[in-house]
Amino acid sequence: MKLTYEGKTKDVYELQDGLFLLKFKDDVTGENGVFDPGANTVGLTIDGAGRAGLSLTTFFYEKLNAAGIPTHFVSSSINDATMTVKPATVFGNGLEVICRFRAVGSFLKRFGAYVKEGQTLDSFVEVTIKDDDRLDPPISQDALEMLHILTEGEYAVLKTMTQEIAQFVKAELAKKGLELYDIKLEFGRDSQTNELILIDEISGGNMRAYKDGHCIEPLELEKLMMATIK
Amino acid sequence: MKLTYEGKTKDVYELQDGLFLLKFKDDVTGENGVFDPGANTVGLTIDGAGRAGLSLTTFFYEKLNAAGIPTHFVSSSINDATMTVKPATVFGNGLEVICRFRAVGSFLKRFGAYVKEGQTLDSFVEVTIKDDDRLDPPISQDALEMLHILTEGEYAVLKTMTQEIAQFVKAELAKKGLELYDIKLEFGRDSQTNELILIDEISGGNMRAYKDGHCIEPLELEKLMMATIK
Repeated sequence: MKLTYEGKTKDVYELQDGLFLLKFKDDVTGENGVFDPGANTVGLTIDGAGRAGLSLTTFFYEKLNAAGIPTHFVSSSINDATMTVKPATVFGNGLEVICRFRAVGSFLKRFGAYVKEGQTLDSFVEVTIKDDDRLDPPISQDALEMLHILTEGEYAVLKTMTQEIAQFVKAELAKKGLELYDIKLEFGRDSQTNELILIDEISGGNMRAYKDGHCIEPLELEKLMMATIK
Repeated sequence: MKLTYEGKTKDVYELQDGLFLLKFKDDVTGENGVFDPGANTVGLTIDGAGRAGLSLTTFFYEKLNAAGIPTHFVSSSINDATMTVKPATVFGNGLEVICRFRAVGSFLKRFGAYVKEGQTLDSFVEVTIKDDDRLDPPISQDALEMLHILTEGEYAVLKTMTQEIAQFVKAELAKKGLELYDIKLEFGRDSQTNELILIDEISGGNMRAYKDGHCIEPLELEKLMMATIK
């Protein structure tokens, strides 16, 4: 099993059957020991964080696959903290697609002259490029196409898929009394079919969820979701 | 004559006939004494800068009005460094609409992983909100509409007008052996007709123009343009 990529929160291994294995680590993005899904650095390490993130990811990806929304998920082993996935190529050096239901985080920082903190947003979608050195800048549809990161037509598909998936996650959280404020997804092109598919993970570290007006830490979110699911 | 607004490079007075008077100052945006059209601060003061900017603005706005591209320009007095304009309301707290022909400035800073410095861009348009405290962040069409800064359909008009005006300015500069790299325009709604019109100015301070591979300072650009026009 060959290590092909070492990420901030996951390592990637190539399997012999053309599939890939993602090994979830116990590292969480943030700054100075405080969780922040928008951060580019590992802020803290929590025992069991990898397995908890994988449990929630497995829960969502199995449901999404069943609902006909294509993902790279094949199977997972919670004990090993590993997930087997189909190969996919990312757009450029990778994009993050964000769906926002309430104004917090970087959206509030940029557009605070026009929105109040926590104000409702209508499934607002925006894309950022993965570029730690340049602090993951937002990028417009026009720029994505001009720079050949997306082909024409792909933006509309990404936006629709993102809103569908975000609404799906929001509804699942709502069943447990949690409110999804925003979520960050990653997509790629299926290496076999070239179809756009959801890649990476959907765990507490990818979203801001609130309960009674307070943001829930990733591990707590995963516990709340998985405890009540069982 | 009532002073209604004190800007970084212009003051605005209300006239008695419903028109407004813009008084061009000798201040130029930049940082630490160096011109930067993308800067939010007055970087330097140059004797005659106001009149030179007004001369070039008058040149372009008279031609644009004649070409049927609506602007707020009514008349100007170079000696007084004043321009008489029609009233217009800005979008939200004001937008800047940028058209880029080559990758420099903030575009290069954000997307340097995908473009080389000076690489040709295809009349790329992007919008930033005027917000000094938040460093004029770029904003997408979706966000402009969601935040009710633009109404549906206005973005397409702004984009087309921006490309037309930028191409027009680029062609005028090319006649003098200068190459337009990027330009920053402002638009508003005509207070009488609600039509989208070009407001503010088109001077050296609004654009990056190059000659023989070197960026030309605003005053030098205005001299080169006006000297050869006469």
